[in-house]
Amino acid sequence: MQTPLRFTRWLVLVLGLVMVGALEVSAAAKLPNFVVIFADDLGYGDLGCYGHPTIRTPNLDRMAAEGMRFTDFYASAPVCTPSRAGLLTGRLAVRSGMASSKRRVLFPESKGGLPANEITTATALKAKGYATAAVGKWHLGVVPGTLPTSHGFDSYFGIPYSNDMNRDNTKGPKGREAFWEPKTEYWNNPLMRNEEIIERPADQNTLTKRYTQESVSIIKANKDKPFFLYLAHNLPHVPLFVGKEYRGTSRRGLYGDVVEEIDWSVGQILETLRKEKLADNTLVFFTSDNGPWLIFNDHGGSAGLLKEGKGSTWDGGQRVPGIAWWPGKVRAGVVEGSIASTLDLFPTFMKLAGVAMPKDREYDGVDMGPLLFGKGKGNRDFFPYYRDVEVYAARLGQYKAHFATKSAYGKDPVVRPEIPELYDMGVDPGEQFNIAKQHPDVIEKIRELVKQHEASIKPVENQLEKQ
Amino acid sequence: MQTPLRFTRWLVLVLGLVMVGALEVSAAAKLPNFVVIFADDLGYGDLGCYGHPTIRTPNLDRMAAEGMRFTDFYASAPVCTPSRAGLLTGRLAVRSGMASSKRRVLFPESKGGLPANEITTATALKAKGYATAAVGKWHLGVVPGTLPTSHGFDSYFGIPYSNDMNRDNTKGPKGREAFWEPKTEYWNNPLMRNEEIIERPADQNTLTKRYTQESVSIIKANKDKPFFLYLAHNLPHVPLFVGKEYRGTSRRGLYGDVVEEIDWSVGQILETLRKEKLADNTLVFFTSDNGPWLIFNDHGGSAGLLKEGKGSTWDGGQRVPGIAWWPGKVRAGVVEGSIASTLDLFPTFMKLAGVAMPKDREYDGVDMGPLLFGKGKGNRDFFPYYRDVEVYAARLGQYKAHFATKSAYGKDPVVRPEIPELYDMGVDPGEQFNIAKQHPDVIEKIRELVKQHEASIKPVENQLEKQ
Repeated sequence: MQTPLRFTRWLVLVLGLVMVGALEVSAAAKLPNFVVIFADDLGYGDLGCYGHPTIRTPNLDRMAAEGMRFTDFYASAPVCTPSRAGLLTGRLAVRSGMASSKRRVLFPESKGGLPANEITTATALKAKGYATAAVGKWHLGVVPGTLPTSHGFDSYFGIPYSNDMNRDNTKGPKGREAFWEPKTEYWNNPLMRNEEIIERPADQNTLTKRYTQESVSIIKANKDKPFFLYLAHNLPHVPLFVGKEYRGTSRRGLYGDVVEEIDWSVGQILETLRKEKLADNTLVFFTSDNGPWLIFNDHGGSAGLLKEGKGSTWDGGQRVPGIAWWPGKVRAGVVEGSIASTLDLFPTFMKLAGVAMPKDREYDGVDMGPLLFGKGKGNRDFFPYYRDVEVYAARLGQYKAHFATKSAYGKDPVVRPEIPELYDMGVDPGEQFNIAKQHPDVIEKIRELVKQHEASIKPVENQLEKQ
Repeated sequence: MQTPLRFTRWLVLVLGLVMVGALEVSAAAKLPNFVVIFADDLGYGDLGCYGHPTIRTPNLDRMAAEGMRFTDFYASAPVCTPSRAGLLTGRLAVRSGMASSKRRVLFPESKGGLPANEITTATALKAKGYATAAVGKWHLGVVPGTLPTSHGFDSYFGIPYSNDMNRDNTKGPKGREAFWEPKTEYWNNPLMRNEEIIERPADQNTLTKRYTQESVSIIKANKDKPFFLYLAHNLPHVPLFVGKEYRGTSRRGLYGDVVEEIDWSVGQILETLRKEKLADNTLVFFTSDNGPWLIFNDHGGSAGLLKEGKGSTWDGGQRVPGIAWWPGKVRAGVVEGSIASTLDLFPTFMKLAGVAMPKDREYDGVDMGPLLFGKGKGNRDFFPYYRDVEVYAARLGQYKAHFATKSAYGKDPVVRPEIPELYDMGVDPGEQFNIAKQHPDVIEKIRELVKQHEASIKPVENQLEKQ
């Protein structure tokens, strides 16, 4: 009886080693997938799980309950182009020339765009064998060399800038009137596949649905290799468009319809990941490019209790919903108060994919890994709020100092107070009670950090003013 | 073999009937318990599940996840005394004389109080054999015949009015300065047990904890009979006091500490109900008496995206958190958008306890049962917003008309615009975009309903001005 038992033991041991080896090989091969879902002009207060009373977002609420919901998550800029440059490069737009005090964003006729020497998340992951796809709004250039397919994405499907550009003035009512009951033909926007325009004007009513279908197809097509999907919705930016299934369904009116269709889209993405058995190997991050565009009345969103909205360096301009999801990996059901930013996605993804951070340039992002997977606090205490190319405000832990203030879209001059305004963002998230006089030391400390930060900025060609 | 089988069948039948009978008796005997947890000056935006970024309320968030969270829940008045009268009687304060345009609430020296002929929830349930207990703030009178024990409560333990009354001007700094670092001895408040003062000045730092301990004891002592527990915290009304376990723990500062201790208290109550196996037979309702007191800077709360706060008939004054919990009975995990009010608690409890509504008086509350347990919409479409004894505004479905406006605590005169302001509370919960000109028909409809409502109000003795 000894020999068979020994043989059995040996067999178990060998099989065990073989299995461990197989698992190790499999683990090494199974690089995690990344999905970024990026809403346009969605405000901090616009989701159910962030307290909106009349917008229903069951899919995002579930995503938050299964994952991590950030209370202090920041877009990298208060307007579109620099915000997107920051997300995709991990660097503030001032470093890539994608910010300007004269033109705050790129326009269809702009000759500039994200420079070829910038490394996007897609470029970096592609080198590691990732499939990469951009779906939706780009807004980082349309001239040759600046479209997604020139920046590491295998494919692109979407409108390459904001959906309110290319207004066709021969159609519909004049001025802002055209926004209240928008029709697709009022805006002569191009829908592109890779570098080609495939539809013009793009049918915006089916945009969210088509972006979703495209994204679902990409996930299914790439289920056997690592992928990076960047799904940047054109909505709820004005003019508001919505699929017929969602039109007139929200208590919040058309804006609510639009957000609720995006919530549906999020549900479709997560459901596809579950069905394809990719959920346990995919990090999904949902956020917005900046705060709500308040000058559009009820066609703009809400920053909740935060001050101001899009375009402003008050928190309503840059603090946005931020939800991370990766079942079994991202801490579940956590409401996280540490400061984090879209700038942090680049280094976080690089770390997870085993890609070394490039050494030849400055990064503003920090790895969110410890925050997402560990028990520690975040890596980020300092956050500079840029209005275009100038640091207007900066946060250090709970404190935020304003060195310059200006209304989001007014023609009022910049105010640079002798004593910067100071707010405790924990006690006073609405920035109502200036406590500068009580904490001159804090202001000096923040001022010093801003100076150090500014010293790291090198002059670059301004892409937004390029003729 | 026939006989035994027949006998078995007979036995099964008889046993079945006996068991059904026993269950029926048991069901009839097991009247549901009711617990109302009432916060003081807690704002609509002050809980985690209502979107506050820096106040942590895990117990209330869990209560909401296991129960029903209302988005459009209203206190019956924007200030303390009339709000509490409304909750406990199911009738607007104007009907009981507990509202006045000259003195908005009762004061320690007031000679008035809730009249003896008013029927409170406690009085009505007591007739059905309920044990009844009031813990915490009363604020419906201190003269004989007006305290809780004269209004159907078996016992009372608490401060009988607001915790900022009875300021001892010989102690501490003058004026509002005393509020910023409050000490118990600055306010000479009485802590009462039944009709006796047992501590003066009441140690306010231990108030939330002692109210909680008292409530837990009451639940345990009454686990074998139906009970009604009315736990009305004195906090987070200013001056803010907090137990040492919670002091300095919240990012939101002292106000956050106080709310987080109340959240702890809610956790203790629910945990006691679970441990005592009463959870499946107890309806718990959490809410607040009015919106945040905004004139106290960061010692006041937040109404989130709603307009204004305590004292005002803008929604921030009266719309409050509302969470219903009854595992297995109240629909779980529901975010409910129907209009409901503290006025509705009285008829809801009566229905559940099998008590007929008194026929000799008008009620403003409607049974919330269909909303809590069924699938239908709420029973309430109309809600009048009283400032003292006048209907300043009224809501009909999604619309709200303002017939009169006035700042919450300013000395500005009442404005009664020729065309009332009109807001769509679904599309525009922040009451920013007046749509009166587009909907004159809606305004007329609301005006007509207000007239009908006003016709039902009978003159009564003013309790708040009584000398």
